[in-house]
Amino acid sequence: MEAMRSIIQRYGHKRISLAEAGATRHRSIFNGLKALAEDQPDCKLTKPEVVIIHDAVRPFVEEDILLRVVLAAKEHGAAGAIRPLVSTVISPSADGHLDHSLDRAKHRASEMPQAFLFDVIYEAYQQCSDFDLEFGTECLQLALKYCHRKAKLVEGPPALWKVTYKQDLCAAEAMIKEKISQEICVVMNTKDEESVGHLLEEALRKELNCMKITSTVMDHIGGDIRNFIEQCYSFICVNVVSPDSQETRKLLRILEESSLPLLYPVVVVLVHCFDFTSVPLAQKMESLVWIRGLAKEVKERNILLSGLLLNYSQDEQKLQESLGQSAAIIAALVKERNSALVGQLLVA
Amino acid sequence: MEAMRSIIQRYGHKRISLAEAGATRHRSIFNGLKALAEDQPDCKLTKPEVVIIHDAVRPFVEEDILLRVVLAAKEHGAAGAIRPLVSTVISPSADGHLDHSLDRAKHRASEMPQAFLFDVIYEAYQQCSDFDLEFGTECLQLALKYCHRKAKLVEGPPALWKVTYKQDLCAAEAMIKEKISQEICVVMNTKDEESVGHLLEEALRKELNCMKITSTVMDHIGGDIRNFIEQCYSFICVNVVSPDSQETRKLLRILEESSLPLLYPVVVVLVHCFDFTSVPLAQKMESLVWIRGLAKEVKERNILLSGLLLNYSQDEQKLQESLGQSAAIIAALVKERNSALVGQLLVA
Repeated sequence: MEAMRSIIQRYGHKRISLAEAGATRHRSIFNGLKALAEDQPDCKLTKPEVVIIHDAVRPFVEEDILLRVVLAAKEHGAAGAIRPLVSTVISPSADGHLDHSLDRAKHRASEMPQAFLFDVIYEAYQQCSDFDLEFGTECLQLALKYCHRKAKLVEGPPALWKVTYKQDLCAAEAMIKEKISQEICVVMNTKDEESVGHLLEEALRKELNCMKITSTVMDHIGGDIRNFIEQCYSFICVNVVSPDSQETRKLLRILEESSLPLLYPVVVVLVHCFDFTSVPLAQKMESLVWIRGLAKEVKERNILLSGLLLNYSQDEQKLQESLGQSAAIIAALVKERNSALVGQLLVA
Repeated sequence: MEAMRSIIQRYGHKRISLAEAGATRHRSIFNGLKALAEDQPDCKLTKPEVVIIHDAVRPFVEEDILLRVVLAAKEHGAAGAIRPLVSTVISPSADGHLDHSLDRAKHRASEMPQAFLFDVIYEAYQQCSDFDLEFGTECLQLALKYCHRKAKLVEGPPALWKVTYKQDLCAAEAMIKEKISQEICVVMNTKDEESVGHLLEEALRKELNCMKITSTVMDHIGGDIRNFIEQCYSFICVNVVSPDSQETRKLLRILEESSLPLLYPVVVVLVHCFDFTSVPLAQKMESLVWIRGLAKEVKERNILLSGLLLNYSQDEQKLQESLGQSAAIIAALVKERNSALVGQLLVA
């Protein structure tokens, strides 16, 4: 309970009440329902018309499916998400042999979320046997058995899969990383359409063809950029002219003050463009060591800062090569969001 | 068929025969069985006692479960892997409502691999109806229906899950990356127990506590190292004294000549240790630009080479900090195996 309270406080959640879990799934749900029922002592909450039951093991629930089960529950008293069966289901005999197999097309996997008229599901839990409370796994079945409500079944998306095994944790991590990497904002310090910033934007579009690439001008930071930071967790700052650390600090301050780094790590890549033949790479790197210090500082606030040196060559082929490699490096930093690489100066 | 032939040739597989797929699962399996049956015209293969049926959608099948289903099939005529159900299975009515839910404890998911006495399963496919061939999904059911063999059910590991949705592809990728990152070999050029190589080995053990860390001495390359390269896909070369590119090239040649990079990308990190206060970082980096060129060259042969500069400071605290950061960077390179980062000189 203490851990949950600290999570609620940390993320500033409102309108959340906690109920203690029971020893089994059905006992936990029953405790949750009791907290909403007005016939219980010390009840501080108002009884709702419809309740949604969901489990944390399906973290990728979208608003759309919640809406659909709620509407179906209002109409039918009970409703739940279903998915097609991935494997054939069989019934084993007592000695571990095949007794019979079920027709895959005639069965479905029952998933969460499920929704109920509050009075229906509360009644079902009040009526149900100790055996059900101990060994049951299906709320829809309780509504059917004790309140004669045949739940409406609603087709849910694949993302409702149940995170159960180690491979599911790997998948969940990859899905979250993908979700927060869907948008990249390229911040430039010039509006010039011919600028290297726009060339890099183009290269990123080629490399990351399923991501949304937006761009803005450094001057607009504070105004324009606030429109992006609601869903965008990746910022590529292109400093064509000089490594002006003041503008960078301004962007970092805006990010720090937003709620973004509270939820997920924010990637910021500072791209410095110059002709590698005109300035020695080592000299340029030396002039950019401040990135290392700054990166260490903002890492504590969940911002992953790194530098990228782009060869703004007169030679068209070399320039294209460097743009392509820059896009690939940015894609790696954005998709993997690995904190071990903060403060590095990468070369494209 | 052409694509499969080229895969077989590329990886040097022996004893593989191809059969053309049919329009449905059961028709494909039947074609495979016909290729083994001696009653078919042009049959070049010998009829086996037992056949295993598996599907590519479960790529993580281990020898142990293959052995167990084969032994069970020899005894019972048919056997298949099963797994507990993750979700409750329900039966919907025609109008999309819950008809009844199945007792989760009394049912199992039927998975692959399955094994059969050849005569049993071939007989079953020869007898089975067009309806079965078109709409059936369960080989065990055919053996039951047409040959009255009640398959023995064998509990399989979670890794037999069916790679079906996008999240499963993410999970499969993560599982492969984890599998090939389980062992790291630290290659040193001194046996000295006090050397920075051994300190780095210790730091890696702390950072990667579930991985196997082995070490060898550079002199032994060619002999000793060949013992590692059967299962190891990550090599950390510690050059305390000088960046001797000859020894590096020798290691790379051995790796190139092995079958390792044919299967998975091999990570090689060249660690250069020196006191950052005695040699300017920029100067050192300039002296290591050859790594960039070499990395580009070996990338084509699926070897991911990068450099790491470690601060071998007299200051104990700074040394420990650099060792810790080196271990974190190496962990990122080994676990993510991202080809976009080859040729980079990273600083710890």
